[in-house]
Amino acid sequence: MKLLRVGPAGAERPALLDQDGVLRDLGGLVPDIDGALLADEAALARVAAAAADGSLPALDAGLRVGPPLARIGKIVCIGLNYHDHAAETGAQAPSEPVVFMKAPDTVVGPDDTVLVPRGSVKTDWEVELAVVIGRELRYAASHEEALAAVAGYAVAHDVSEREFQIERGGQWDKGKNCETFNPLGPWLVTADEVPDPQALSLKLWVNGVLRQDGTTADQIFPVAEVVRYLSQFMTLYPGDVINTGTPAGVALGRPEPKPYLKPGDVVELTIEGLGRQRQELAPA
Amino acid sequence: MKLLRVGPAGAERPALLDQDGVLRDLGGLVPDIDGALLADEAALARVAAAAADGSLPALDAGLRVGPPLARIGKIVCIGLNYHDHAAETGAQAPSEPVVFMKAPDTVVGPDDTVLVPRGSVKTDWEVELAVVIGRELRYAASHEEALAAVAGYAVAHDVSEREFQIERGGQWDKGKNCETFNPLGPWLVTADEVPDPQALSLKLWVNGVLRQDGTTADQIFPVAEVVRYLSQFMTLYPGDVINTGTPAGVALGRPEPKPYLKPGDVVELTIEGLGRQRQELAPA
Repeated sequence: MKLLRVGPAGAERPALLDQDGVLRDLGGLVPDIDGALLADEAALARVAAAAADGSLPALDAGLRVGPPLARIGKIVCIGLNYHDHAAETGAQAPSEPVVFMKAPDTVVGPDDTVLVPRGSVKTDWEVELAVVIGRELRYAASHEEALAAVAGYAVAHDVSEREFQIERGGQWDKGKNCETFNPLGPWLVTADEVPDPQALSLKLWVNGVLRQDGTTADQIFPVAEVVRYLSQFMTLYPGDVINTGTPAGVALGRPEPKPYLKPGDVVELTIEGLGRQRQELAPA
Repeated sequence: MKLLRVGPAGAERPALLDQDGVLRDLGGLVPDIDGALLADEAALARVAAAAADGSLPALDAGLRVGPPLARIGKIVCIGLNYHDHAAETGAQAPSEPVVFMKAPDTVVGPDDTVLVPRGSVKTDWEVELAVVIGRELRYAASHEEALAAVAGYAVAHDVSEREFQIERGGQWDKGKNCETFNPLGPWLVTADEVPDPQALSLKLWVNGVLRQDGTTADQIFPVAEVVRYLSQFMTLYPGDVINTGTPAGVALGRPEPKPYLKPGDVVELTIEGLGRQRQELAPA
């Protein structure tokens, strides 16, 4: 299923994109799309049944699309997780996953405005496969157990300010948590519709120029290993999100003058089967 | 006011510790103690009025104390923020705040069990002054504006696994987000009762031995500067928490063999005017 949330920011209602591409209202069936729903197999089965029998009312296709998940608990991010991206930044491929975090309040809808922070000269793009957790997981013993905790997948844009991240004292989080820095969606695609998360193409354009063109086959640590690994260090809960890293092609990896983002720029990104985002940049 | 939340984990009710040390029920007056309450001046005034006129029913003093804040949005942490702690870890005093993050799901009550992660041999303690945000803040222009966004203060225990934090590839967050790693409370003391956050003594004992004995006067970046600084990089929202760093005396700073925590150990910690915590360690 393709689950989403539509309507004004902060007042979105749950919806579903059906097999024919028609937007359907889930508001009469479930209160929202969040960790509680993803952990509730019976509720998900009711949604699937209603989607199949055609009983869901259609919604206006022109509604704003919000983030496809409400009440995100935490966003855990994996750094340098593609061979080609590690190489372009001059880093060695890490021997185990590099972990940092974004606050859930950085999440906006897939087509919402992204703000260039005040004083920023190095705002950069990163298309990423987001993994959404649907079941509590601690100390997973196998990749199978890890994957069983995954509710679905989405497109994430891990917007990053490189000066704040790298040149301002110590830890990457400082350049990862600016407001609007995590567009998510348009859809949360349930895991049953993504048979192989390691075979997805990812693309990102800036002002129409293709900048990233990668595949999750190039991930150093695939989704099953990322989820298993993280569960050794923290408990994963329904409604948590993991941004699994970005392929080559970011501004940081380009020759000088690096083409960092500025107000007025337009970023578009897509992952195979997971939909497309489009953001215009504006000053904070 | 000293605000707190009492009762079973996940089902706490809001309460207040009055001037005479009597626990009073706020359940009839406000739904919970969270960012929404802290941002609501009228509701806080109703609580203060009820506390003053003695109309609040008393509660059983033996109830479990939970974290004093529900629905925490994010926890931003400052590293190496005391001159003596930076020195003991062999680090230079940072030229600007070092920022990392803990997930809100690491928060437990002040006297709840803390779990030593599986495979951990370097679980460490850190007593910290926690700042609780009560007003949205972006790009604060002054220390006055920053302090006006502070709703109150609390004791935080920033439990840290040093091998995960430092020796496992890159970013500190990996050693900061294990389950139960952020005991908070007992109280959220409103800012009006903490006239000078830079004049508070902090102490921590392990198995009765005093290990940390510091003062917030030794902070490299005081609370007003930490809040102002962070607001240049991220938006702070009501219900966000900032752990402002720890003074000297952690296990990492001791000679070998360093006395890291193990199951059965008891940690007690206190900050002047903000109450006392006591945790027993257990295996995860």
